[in-house]
Amino acid sequence: MRQRNKPWADDFLNEHRDLVIVNPKENKNKWKDIFGNTNPIHLEIGTGKGQFIVGMAKQYPAINFIGIEMAKSITVDAAQKVKESGQENLILLNENANDLEELFAENEISTIYLNFSDPWPKNRHEKRRLSYHTFLAKYEKVLKENSELIMKTDNRLLFEYSLVSFSNYGLKLEEVSLDLHQLDDPTNVMTEYEEKFSSKGQPIYRCQAKFR
Amino acid sequence: MRQRNKPWADDFLNEHRDLVIVNPKENKNKWKDIFGNTNPIHLEIGTGKGQFIVGMAKQYPAINFIGIEMAKSITVDAAQKVKESGQENLILLNENANDLEELFAENEISTIYLNFSDPWPKNRHEKRRLSYHTFLAKYEKVLKENSELIMKTDNRLLFEYSLVSFSNYGLKLEEVSLDLHQLDDPTNVMTEYEEKFSSKGQPIYRCQAKFR
Repeated sequence: MRQRNKPWADDFLNEHRDLVIVNPKENKNKWKDIFGNTNPIHLEIGTGKGQFIVGMAKQYPAINFIGIEMAKSITVDAAQKVKESGQENLILLNENANDLEELFAENEISTIYLNFSDPWPKNRHEKRRLSYHTFLAKYEKVLKENSELIMKTDNRLLFEYSLVSFSNYGLKLEEVSLDLHQLDDPTNVMTEYEEKFSSKGQPIYRCQAKFR
Repeated sequence: MRQRNKPWADDFLNEHRDLVIVNPKENKNKWKDIFGNTNPIHLEIGTGKGQFIVGMAKQYPAINFIGIEMAKSITVDAAQKVKESGQENLILLNENANDLEELFAENEISTIYLNFSDPWPKNRHEKRRLSYHTFLAKYEKVLKENSELIMKTDNRLLFEYSLVSFSNYGLKLEEVSLDLHQLDDPTNVMTEYEEKFSSKGQPIYRCQAKFR
């Protein structure tokens, strides 16, 4: 995603420490205290500008959502959206997915979403794809048993790769859609990318997989 | 596939008992004797008019191919194609895939191809889909250990269903292509349907899965 330099980003984040948590690693195993309840926690990795996770938080008030975004200038955009929404079941972390195990304890998360992740098309960048097996191992660790990993993307090569990677890791495919918007599912919450690409008629791929 | 009544079909088949084997269940566990060698045997289920299996037999002379087609009038078309090709590493069976275990012994087959199988789109016909778990169990039985099941189709719903069914059964996805003809792979042998649909720009789906 294109990142613009935002000199006011630090100030904004400082003023909104309830939306974008500072020093989040200190909250490992204590996220329920931040939310003030024991509702399940769903995690989106690569939250971007936040349309998906804000929409999900509105649609599912009995679930707590955490969005991770590593780019500060984009996290700020998402934070503004969270603020406008007034949703209290939703926080953001300006962190890197590599640090997942430092951010969350075992079994602390109930579902993980990967939306329109960077496809890293070059072979030599395979390790950076969020469906690479080292990431799957991190997800498995922080997820409860039998939890779901849900991926959406418009990128055919990433999706083909991910199906094989999930299968190799031993994940069970529960649902695969190769043209999500054919279904016209009113509960589907779209990301910014999804709106853009599906309006151009490009198929959106979706896969729901379960750790065994 | 559209079936025309061919009154001469029986005569044709009678004259070509070397191409379309009569009473094939008697050859269970003895197919290597029919071919006169111990080369691996690949099986196509639903051979149709035979373009794929004839092309494969030409391309891979050190592999023996068996094509199963349950419609007699279509088997005749395929037999004519086999005859014209002069390939000796290829025979046909006018049989039903339900009878696989009566046709082949355990470990007798090395690879199975499902090409443009009938999608049976209605839920109540799920059991007839060639990727339904009862069929997978039959395939597993006649296949050698670690053998591959390779599916091609233009039917999105069948492909989505099959990926989930394979995964549930415990098959490992080795390769998934959601637009086979983007690859421009010169070794890909096309079926009649594949030629027709891909020339219209429809994506062809392909999946290579392995029994664990």
